[in-house]
Amino acid sequence: MKLGLFLNSFGHHIAAWRDADVDASLPLDLAYWADIARRAEAAKLDFVFKADIAAPSGPFSAERVRRTTGARHTEPLTLVAALSAVTRRIGLIATMSTTYNEPFHVARFFASLDRLNGGRTGWNAVTTYAIDEALNFNRAAAPPHAERYDRAEEFIDVVTGLWDGWEPDAVVADKATGVFVDTTKIHALDHAGKHFRVKGPLAVERSPQGRPVVVQAGQSDDGRELAARVAEVVFTVQQDIEAARSFRADLKARAAALGRAPAALLVMPGLVPVVGATTAEAEAKYERLQSLIDPLLGLSVLSHIMSADLSSCPIDGPLPELPLTNTQQGRQKLVIELARRENLTLRQLARRVAGARAHLTIVGTARHVADTMVRWVEAGAADGFNIMPLIMPDGLDDFTSMVLPELQRRGLFRTDYDGMTLRDHLGLPLPEGRGGTGR
Amino acid sequence: MKLGLFLNSFGHHIAAWRDADVDASLPLDLAYWADIARRAEAAKLDFVFKADIAAPSGPFSAERVRRTTGARHTEPLTLVAALSAVTRRIGLIATMSTTYNEPFHVARFFASLDRLNGGRTGWNAVTTYAIDEALNFNRAAAPPHAERYDRAEEFIDVVTGLWDGWEPDAVVADKATGVFVDTTKIHALDHAGKHFRVKGPLAVERSPQGRPVVVQAGQSDDGRELAARVAEVVFTVQQDIEAARSFRADLKARAAALGRAPAALLVMPGLVPVVGATTAEAEAKYERLQSLIDPLLGLSVLSHIMSADLSSCPIDGPLPELPLTNTQQGRQKLVIELARRENLTLRQLARRVAGARAHLTIVGTARHVADTMVRWVEAGAADGFNIMPLIMPDGLDDFTSMVLPELQRRGLFRTDYDGMTLRDHLGLPLPEGRGGTGR
Repeated sequence: MKLGLFLNSFGHHIAAWRDADVDASLPLDLAYWADIARRAEAAKLDFVFKADIAAPSGPFSAERVRRTTGARHTEPLTLVAALSAVTRRIGLIATMSTTYNEPFHVARFFASLDRLNGGRTGWNAVTTYAIDEALNFNRAAAPPHAERYDRAEEFIDVVTGLWDGWEPDAVVADKATGVFVDTTKIHALDHAGKHFRVKGPLAVERSPQGRPVVVQAGQSDDGRELAARVAEVVFTVQQDIEAARSFRADLKARAAALGRAPAALLVMPGLVPVVGATTAEAEAKYERLQSLIDPLLGLSVLSHIMSADLSSCPIDGPLPELPLTNTQQGRQKLVIELARRENLTLRQLARRVAGARAHLTIVGTARHVADTMVRWVEAGAADGFNIMPLIMPDGLDDFTSMVLPELQRRGLFRTDYDGMTLRDHLGLPLPEGRGGTGR
Repeated sequence: MKLGLFLNSFGHHIAAWRDADVDASLPLDLAYWADIARRAEAAKLDFVFKADIAAPSGPFSAERVRRTTGARHTEPLTLVAALSAVTRRIGLIATMSTTYNEPFHVARFFASLDRLNGGRTGWNAVTTYAIDEALNFNRAAAPPHAERYDRAEEFIDVVTGLWDGWEPDAVVADKATGVFVDTTKIHALDHAGKHFRVKGPLAVERSPQGRPVVVQAGQSDDGRELAARVAEVVFTVQQDIEAARSFRADLKARAAALGRAPAALLVMPGLVPVVGATTAEAEAKYERLQSLIDPLLGLSVLSHIMSADLSSCPIDGPLPELPLTNTQQGRQKLVIELARRENLTLRQLARRVAGARAHLTIVGTARHVADTMVRWVEAGAADGFNIMPLIMPDGLDDFTSMVLPELQRRGLFRTDYDGMTLRDHLGLPLPEGRGGTGR
């Protein structure tokens, strides 16, 4: 079972910062994040993962901005670069969007980081839909969904193409002849496509893991097709084991149809574990956080996900019929299904969704949480999980001290690292670059 | 006296990697760079500084690519982010170009890093002239000099404007009311200019040093005008004390004319110290490196700087008359002046220029090096220096163990840090943001 840690301010719960056990005055500087990354490494997790948004607000979001920690957001690349220096084995995955970036910059950042940290880097390639982000990049609106994915597809190909430009033995460093690199082993990319013209090569050698791991998170049809072709890890939001099984099977089938080994694509849903010595204790922990969600905040989060202003709808009535929009289609479908399946009022739905933003939440004893995780993996609904503790660091410690030993007892998770790179941890193959799979 | 360390592979000398004392098989991973940064911090230097080029080659450069370490180049931002975690006090300056980037990304990277490392960050804002870089960014050629500077000017204004958007006390984190930020204290930028439309705000609080330090390196008239308005540190290439004095006086006069305090703009030439117990020992050290420069490599470097193919010119004749080009005008003028002043042949000039790429090189005893540095500072030719050791780490150790004590004995350099931030070290004022100069 693969296990990552999702890094998110004081915890994944939207009201985490209000919890009595959280010191919300902490500056989220390197000391804060280093402590968390070290705990994750001590637990031998596969990676830490930093999501991203490049703008703090959004429509229908005044309450969300005021009442959450989201108005301030540590930038992922510089964060995982810094964490490279305080950890030795754990993988480090940073999000960077394909929508307003240049593939040469992104390729270079991640390739250089992967050299610095000895092959522990992953790139979570996303597209950017929020209008607030568009307004920071000379645009009046985000590009349409299809255009974003069309650009992302070519963008990722350019990035991986640049990563593969150096043969493993290009550096010769022959002091006698004065030749440092064998230039016949460094290949330009000469890419000329619809969105990009990029000559290359990068000024970065092949990484100890061949190249950084590509992570992707789209759930729409475009997103799945892209993931099936290029992703090595898919981070996904799932609530229902059957829907998750179907999603994973679909992705692996699409990958197989493209000639990829299904095992080279790992599907990892987000998971919020709420662990207690007893079920009642776990439920009390969860309820303590849930009770801190201001109702206005809950409705603001739901409005944001649905891209619709729900503040004038009857709060004790059902979710109205809403069209899917140009944003977050996968999560919108999931929210609609959840509301229908459990016949929730808007008030109930808002609170359910706001707390963990629709990610699978398992509340109970360590055995119950572990049983559920195992059931998902055995059912083919997941290759592992991206763990999203309610609060930090206590929620992480609960998971590593109570749930992990359950999984280890059953032989389902490592007790120490075997390898040095993120690919080693995840069991992913070394990509074939120019000149083979050598390191 | 301000002193930074210029980070450059195995040392600044172009043949450093061939030196017998250098292990050229090292991978330039984090362990390598961390060791160097720790040595610089132990010596209480103001900062380490990482220059940049986003492409490994260039015209007339086949020999330069093959015969130097330049074909591989650690990316500056991720490097200094990682070094944030292995140092506690020293400043960390990374180069990022204004030519093919977006100001929102750059503002965010550096602001977030400055939060992570407690206010030790500097941004060296450059423009990008090399055609090889243009070809990586959808372009057939670099923009003309004036256009690059026009864009840079607006770019830097957007970046500093974004940095100044948060009032110091915007985060309230009031658990009782559930309000995390006072949104009236976070200000959008709403920039709409010739090159950029950027709404803002950043999702990053004001930094412990107000905002990152802005460094700049242009020497052309456009570059000086820009530096006078926005730069806090100017990194410059100078050979001649009188030319350097005139350059610094011109910059400070331009800054004063714009209403800035001259002391808020520090001019720091690059300096290659070659130190020996005796003059003869220092000269032998230098000659050992110089003798390792292949003549073809020397001519390639000179051709690159002058943007002209010199390979067919008589090698024992003078430098031919050449026009200044769209690139590196400051350095071109300096090379032409050097050739005329010392009546050098092309062979002599190539070797002189290739070794340290035209930076001031002082060869001699610790007292001689210190005397020269003091003379420059006392003459108003420099506020300090960016130290570029010939080889690493030995050249750095020579400087810190022999020259620094000379300066300290004369009361011209600190024996310990007084402050915590890069601004503290450099004596630069806290910039006034929205809501004042609070931290």
